[in-house]
Amino acid sequence: MVINIPGPAAGGGGSACGGAAAAAAVEVHRVCLPPPRTTVEKLRRRLADIFFPDDPLHGFKDQTRFRKLVIGLQFFFPIFQWGPDYSFELLKSDVVSGVTIASLAIPQGISYAKLANLPPIIGLYSSFVPPLIYSVLGSSRHLAVGPVSIASLVMGTMLSEAVSYTKEPDLYLKLAFTATFFAGIFQASLGFLRLGFIIDFLSKATLVGFMAGAAVIVSLQQLKGLLGIVHFTAKMQLIPVLSSVFHHTDEWSWQTIVMGVGFLVLLLTTRQISMKKPKLFWISAAAPLASVVLSTILIGYLPKGLNPPSSNMLFFSGPHLALAIKTGILTGILSLTEGIAVGRTFAAMKNYQVDGNKEMVAIGLMNIAGSCSSSYVTTGSFSRSAVNYNAGAKTVVSNIVMAAAVLITLLFLMPLFHYTPNLILAAIIITAVIGLIDYQSAYKLWKVDKLDFVACLCSFFGVLFISVPIGLAIAVGISIFKILLNVTRPNTAALGNIRGTQIYRNLNIYKDAVRVPSFLILAVEAPIYFANSTYLQERIMRWVREEEEWLALNNQSNLKCVILDMTAVTAIDTSGIDTISELRKVLENRSLKFVLANPVGNVMEKLHKSKVLEPFGLEGLYLTVGEAVADISSSWKV
Amino acid sequence: MVINIPGPAAGGGGSACGGAAAAAAVEVHRVCLPPPRTTVEKLRRRLADIFFPDDPLHGFKDQTRFRKLVIGLQFFFPIFQWGPDYSFELLKSDVVSGVTIASLAIPQGISYAKLANLPPIIGLYSSFVPPLIYSVLGSSRHLAVGPVSIASLVMGTMLSEAVSYTKEPDLYLKLAFTATFFAGIFQASLGFLRLGFIIDFLSKATLVGFMAGAAVIVSLQQLKGLLGIVHFTAKMQLIPVLSSVFHHTDEWSWQTIVMGVGFLVLLLTTRQISMKKPKLFWISAAAPLASVVLSTILIGYLPKGLNPPSSNMLFFSGPHLALAIKTGILTGILSLTEGIAVGRTFAAMKNYQVDGNKEMVAIGLMNIAGSCSSSYVTTGSFSRSAVNYNAGAKTVVSNIVMAAAVLITLLFLMPLFHYTPNLILAAIIITAVIGLIDYQSAYKLWKVDKLDFVACLCSFFGVLFISVPIGLAIAVGISIFKILLNVTRPNTAALGNIRGTQIYRNLNIYKDAVRVPSFLILAVEAPIYFANSTYLQERIMRWVREEEEWLALNNQSNLKCVILDMTAVTAIDTSGIDTISELRKVLENRSLKFVLANPVGNVMEKLHKSKVLEPFGLEGLYLTVGEAVADISSSWKV
Repeated sequence: MVINIPGPAAGGGGSACGGAAAAAAVEVHRVCLPPPRTTVEKLRRRLADIFFPDDPLHGFKDQTRFRKLVIGLQFFFPIFQWGPDYSFELLKSDVVSGVTIASLAIPQGISYAKLANLPPIIGLYSSFVPPLIYSVLGSSRHLAVGPVSIASLVMGTMLSEAVSYTKEPDLYLKLAFTATFFAGIFQASLGFLRLGFIIDFLSKATLVGFMAGAAVIVSLQQLKGLLGIVHFTAKMQLIPVLSSVFHHTDEWSWQTIVMGVGFLVLLLTTRQISMKKPKLFWISAAAPLASVVLSTILIGYLPKGLNPPSSNMLFFSGPHLALAIKTGILTGILSLTEGIAVGRTFAAMKNYQVDGNKEMVAIGLMNIAGSCSSSYVTTGSFSRSAVNYNAGAKTVVSNIVMAAAVLITLLFLMPLFHYTPNLILAAIIITAVIGLIDYQSAYKLWKVDKLDFVACLCSFFGVLFISVPIGLAIAVGISIFKILLNVTRPNTAALGNIRGTQIYRNLNIYKDAVRVPSFLILAVEAPIYFANSTYLQERIMRWVREEEEWLALNNQSNLKCVILDMTAVTAIDTSGIDTISELRKVLENRSLKFVLANPVGNVMEKLHKSKVLEPFGLEGLYLTVGEAVADISSSWKV
Repeated sequence: MVINIPGPAAGGGGSACGGAAAAAAVEVHRVCLPPPRTTVEKLRRRLADIFFPDDPLHGFKDQTRFRKLVIGLQFFFPIFQWGPDYSFELLKSDVVSGVTIASLAIPQGISYAKLANLPPIIGLYSSFVPPLIYSVLGSSRHLAVGPVSIASLVMGTMLSEAVSYTKEPDLYLKLAFTATFFAGIFQASLGFLRLGFIIDFLSKATLVGFMAGAAVIVSLQQLKGLLGIVHFTAKMQLIPVLSSVFHHTDEWSWQTIVMGVGFLVLLLTTRQISMKKPKLFWISAAAPLASVVLSTILIGYLPKGLNPPSSNMLFFSGPHLALAIKTGILTGILSLTEGIAVGRTFAAMKNYQVDGNKEMVAIGLMNIAGSCSSSYVTTGSFSRSAVNYNAGAKTVVSNIVMAAAVLITLLFLMPLFHYTPNLILAAIIITAVIGLIDYQSAYKLWKVDKLDFVACLCSFFGVLFISVPIGLAIAVGISIFKILLNVTRPNTAALGNIRGTQIYRNLNIYKDAVRVPSFLILAVEAPIYFANSTYLQERIMRWVREEEEWLALNNQSNLKCVILDMTAVTAIDTSGIDTISELRKVLENRSLKFVLANPVGNVMEKLHKSKVLEPFGLEGLYLTVGEAVADISSSWKV
């Protein structure tokens, strides 16, 4: 007996199968069914696997009530985890790194606020409240929180298409805070509902292309400041931007160009130096601040003081609500992607865990708080976090130190920054975004996976020529299409025996694998779904036809048996089951035996439930291809 | 040496690997790379596999030019294939079955035309020209061609939402022909461009739900005729239809009800008889015709004569063009799905091949021709094809016979049908569509695959309460979501060794599988993509954590090595490669060895190209889990 289908008489409660059948001529093992479970139990497990893959509550198991309370506090406020062990040594490291990232955060904050078409001071406000909130809730130790280029850019683009920031600055500001509020709500809900996997659909390929496209557009837009052009388009597509640059050559001013290019070269050089020698991180960190201070004319007035409350500026009705929500969701998702990826990168380097869903809640709450205190969308910045890491940050206290430095700036140094010339901001922005053009990754995509590269190109050109949301949507569409294509047209392979072993491998790849006479052994390398069941049936019949033609041509013995290796068939649906059943019928019509090898647990369960196995008799299922070949060959000899 | 990574020095031209390494202490086999191929060659193969999975031109290989011409003719006009061997014996069978399906096609044609809100004679025209075209081009021998319920229903619904068929009958007719034309164009293009797999995305589960929903709606709508209600809604949703039925109880007429229910019972009984005894197929075939003849009052006038040309009624501009195209695409896709599925079903029963893409071209051309000769959308009908098959049809000539019978009707018997009472048509329609409610399949879906059942329910209720296109769209969306869910949250399993063998299987399922001390062997049952790479990394780290906790609790020896069984990892993208590389880093930080077992061809190729294997040293890859365990254990003993 080869298979074991426990009927009601077999007492299905326990294990569905025993050991090997000792009486058989060739040793064969039984294919087993997974332990029986109720629908509710299966649903529970499936949902747990979808929403709690990391088993977030495992720390709470088998603990006293008091211990559970402590762990719970630590769970929701990681500050309780590292706080008790915090030492003076750690503080020293954190102060150094905090001051370093502050010197980067202040000019970048101002520049990014400009990118979002917001007053420069909003960039500083955003570098004060959100980092403080994050330091209490966040679980990454190296994340440097504040405004980032991508989210600023997207917010600037989307909002200024509907509202002019020069003509209606108040409405624009309200829109920005409301969008930030919705970004926070969206982020926190994703984390709270444990739907964090949604951001996984922005694949690396998509992001590489998207960020490069955005960086090109932003850099070109900064030519306005760098060339001294006064009349410039507000649009974000490549063509209007380029035509703005070259249709106003009369506005180019050589003084601006010389100064701007000079600062740009300075900033790029210092950036290059710190990239080559991470120990010299302070050069690239100090250069922008130095540039700003150097070039700033020390006159003018800007409101000193801390973040004013802005919760009264949020609106939840009116014609612009939809835009605010849309902008919030898009900037929210993009800033989450950046923040979580950065957090994970540095956590992997220092071998600690960052909980994606908890991070989402932390980032979301910090944006909600930010939107009520004159801040716009913030997240963990890649460039500043890298500087933070290299400067030796040990805990999230470096964010507190940074916030303190920003506090001092806000209270005492603010007037300094009012007249920071546009050309300096342009040079800072270009330096920041140029690093987003990751041509090495793009080249690697091309080398390793052509379709990934196509997705990357599409998001690049989509952003460049159409718009940011459409570019992203196209790239996500291509990524999903790629998954579906792989499911719709899965790989099938003929297997051969590697001499002297029980191993069966792809005949095309393993030259020392040999065909087994009278057998055709096929591996299907995909789940069998409605989307590919017709294809697979056709493809398998073609394998059979080609094998028979080849055998006839080479005067070999006839084909007698087709073995389907189901190891890689990780799932099956009702259409797939019908395919198996039809294949069996068609092959039996041709007097060919058809057996299955190694169906995995849930596939076996479905095959069993659908009763498709019954016509196979009791000998259509084997645990391995080797046992199938041995058993069937020996049955022919008898 | 365990792996073999051919560098440029290794001369990558030939086979990428040789036999087993003889010097090793334990016998281990090398993991091989697929034979090197250029990007163009790989693209060519991939495209061939996407568009020509069935290798349609294989018959042309190694043939003389004349033979190629003959095969080509047979390829495009299957009539040349069976024509020469056609015999009087075959003709006898075909005449019997042709007359039988004609007796079904005439009343059904009239009824379905009514379902599409078209004049009854259009139903007969549609049963004349299209079957003739199909008999020349089609490759199925049992398909009975003509109007079908689903396509008629969808056309009627979609068109009458925009144009009233009572107030503007001419415009409505033009719309119907134009939609038919576009349906044909769409179908023929799908086949010609070999994009037939698009219809695979209508999974069986979706169709079961959709057809049941449509059948319920249509049956309820027929209550108008059956109860004699005069004022009835034109809407297609459940609620307006039911309220129409019960808000006009004063219009119910008991005479109509008695007659209608009488005929309905007669038709359902005969249908039941032929279902139980397929040999009595003629009862269910003759009953509708008999009912029509019996009940028809022999007065009135209807235009005798053949299909008038209608190409002058097609329009390619104007405000209704978009609706015509949309209706054409939807009815086109639905009628294709039915026609191809029916063709495949009967082909499988008689063991011949139906080429999906060629069938699409045939059905498409027949609809284009139909739209120019006063026919609306036609395809192979399931119910009539079954009768055709049971009546002993041998070739597509039965369609020609049927067309001839319709011809006689059109020329001589047409006046008969003008005054067929609505209640008879209603009874015929209900009988036809009631068979679409496939509750047995729905129950099987529930038993075998809960998510398939949900998709089925959604399309059922979507059609019932919202609309036909939305119901279908929801169901397709759920089907795709199901694929993505399976990719996003793939199964992982810990493997154990089945005693006395080299076989490793899921510890949860195989009770005689045992853990291998110091090893954690994990199988990933899915491709590793951007959409699941984060999840898999988390999940694998959780396996490691849980294993270490379990070992500590049971005082077992420490975990030393993690083996990832990649057999079922059928594809990998750049995010997946990063995951492998990060897993290795994280596990090495914990002093755990990390090796891969049996990466399949294209995965191996990508791993190699991305150079992620290099840090593995020369011993991180094994052909089987068994060899990995043996080799690594023996290296520890030394």
